[in-house]
Amino acid sequence: MLKITLIQIGKTKDDALQSLVSDFYKRVGGSVSFDEVTVKNESALWDKVNPSHYNIVLEDSGKEFTSNELSQFIETRKNQGDSHLVFLIGPVDGFSSFPVEPNLKLSLSKMTFSHQTIRLILAEQIYRSISILEGKPYATH
Amino acid sequence: MLKITLIQIGKTKDDALQSLVSDFYKRVGGSVSFDEVTVKNESALWDKVNPSHYNIVLEDSGKEFTSNELSQFIETRKNQGDSHLVFLIGPVDGFSSFPVEPNLKLSLSKMTFSHQTIRLILAEQIYRSISILEGKPYATH
Repeated sequence: MLKITLIQIGKTKDDALQSLVSDFYKRVGGSVSFDEVTVKNESALWDKVNPSHYNIVLEDSGKEFTSNELSQFIETRKNQGDSHLVFLIGPVDGFSSFPVEPNLKLSLSKMTFSHQTIRLILAEQIYRSISILEGKPYATH
Repeated sequence: MLKITLIQIGKTKDDALQSLVSDFYKRVGGSVSFDEVTVKNESALWDKVNPSHYNIVLEDSGKEFTSNELSQFIETRKNQGDSHLVFLIGPVDGFSSFPVEPNLKLSLSKMTFSHQTIRLILAEQIYRSISILEGKPYATH
């Protein structure tokens, strides 16, 4: 089973936002095991990173995908035997360094988002990607 | 005073999302008058469009800006005498036609978002743009 871990700095402050994020991950359903790790700061984030996992950092200047491309990317990783994808959400101004070289730098948008809103954006894209892989028509609302 | 109108199809279904969106617009503050128009469908949306305003449609394939570029863009429009910017949020699969030629097609991301989430993404970017223009350090949470 594909495992997806999200490592983020600081709790989601807004309960409304947290409930929207959680809702997307709940809807991802049975084919993916999802796990959320919250740490205090950037240094604590890197302490949690295992170089043997497939580590994806979110970076404004990273590679941009369409939703379909992200879905295909996840499929390819699965097919190549990466059973554990880890998304790292850094500080709003970006990571100051990369103590572990990430496998992918991913940009969700050229625009900058708060490190809170970006959680919802990522949650929706992971939900969409998995729904596309599973051939589920995802709700468009 | 700059006026920004948002025209969207269907109410925001999730109260949590609506409260997050409203919060960004409330924080935009005194220098912009903000207005939200909700219509039933794509055709009703175009009925509300005034060609003499500066009309911006959200489109996956549109022009991508960074947050700073969007801010500069709004400043330029103001300086060129456009006192009323209108953002049009279409159906999740995009507009089927453009009965009024938009002044700008804007892409917030290569990725596709639900027509609900995109409201929060746009709200945050308008908030950031105006905050940058006003020289306010915006909250990064």
